[in-house]
Amino acid sequence: MSTIFTKIVNGEIPSYKIGENEKCYAFLDINPVAKGHTLVIPKVEVDYIFDLNDDTFAELMLFARKVAKSIEKTVPCNRIGVAVLGLEVPHAHIHLVPIQSEADLSFSRPKLKLPPNEMETIAQKIRKNFLS
Amino acid sequence: MSTIFTKIVNGEIPSYKIGENEKCYAFLDINPVAKGHTLVIPKVEVDYIFDLNDDTFAELMLFARKVAKSIEKTVPCNRIGVAVLGLEVPHAHIHLVPIQSEADLSFSRPKLKLPPNEMETIAQKIRKNFLS
Repeated sequence: MSTIFTKIVNGEIPSYKIGENEKCYAFLDINPVAKGHTLVIPKVEVDYIFDLNDDTFAELMLFARKVAKSIEKTVPCNRIGVAVLGLEVPHAHIHLVPIQSEADLSFSRPKLKLPPNEMETIAQKIRKNFLS
Repeated sequence: MSTIFTKIVNGEIPSYKIGENEKCYAFLDINPVAKGHTLVIPKVEVDYIFDLNDDTFAELMLFARKVAKSIEKTVPCNRIGVAVLGLEVPHAHIHLVPIQSEADLSFSRPKLKLPPNEMETIAQKIRKNFLS
């Protein structure tokens, strides 16, 4: 059975898409810890990020960097924090989170609940910076 | 003035070293959130990880993966979590933390205080797996 992330990549489940290339896909986390919190995934269905092959792993990281630069152009923040935990969904994913302080990269804090139109507006702005 | 991490790379400040290559260096975090918590840094003194050039960035990530594989061979854990915050020391660094659950990758929890001989034993074991 496909993971929820594969269904997102295939368009079977909608997402607030930021961008993609041949091997990678980025979209807003629907339970964000901060505005602009984005997930970056490989299209290949691999559970543990360190099990990706060298090429896909390096490409995913370079793609994530491009996405991070797009988020930081869009959302006021000190910098973009990075986290890989990967215990919830068996499909490797990188969290990119705009942070002001270390405490902002905490997954135990209550998640934000943003209305769909605000999520779409954030995604559009990041996407525009990603494509420019 | 050199960062504390450059002084570690240069041997001016001691560290529980895990390994190095031409561009990267890995050592135990002296304020670990879990046993085996390791920092991976580029030797070049760049504050923000996403400001590294493509080659150094990709190489740092592949080096970090090799270190992560060495840690998970050494320390009982579900997998290795990854975090980049980078607000404490102005020299890019990746946290690699053995985790059992998501809550284990929390920097707001009290840090472990391990005696030097235990830190050295952990480093030796990870280093051996890194070199093998």
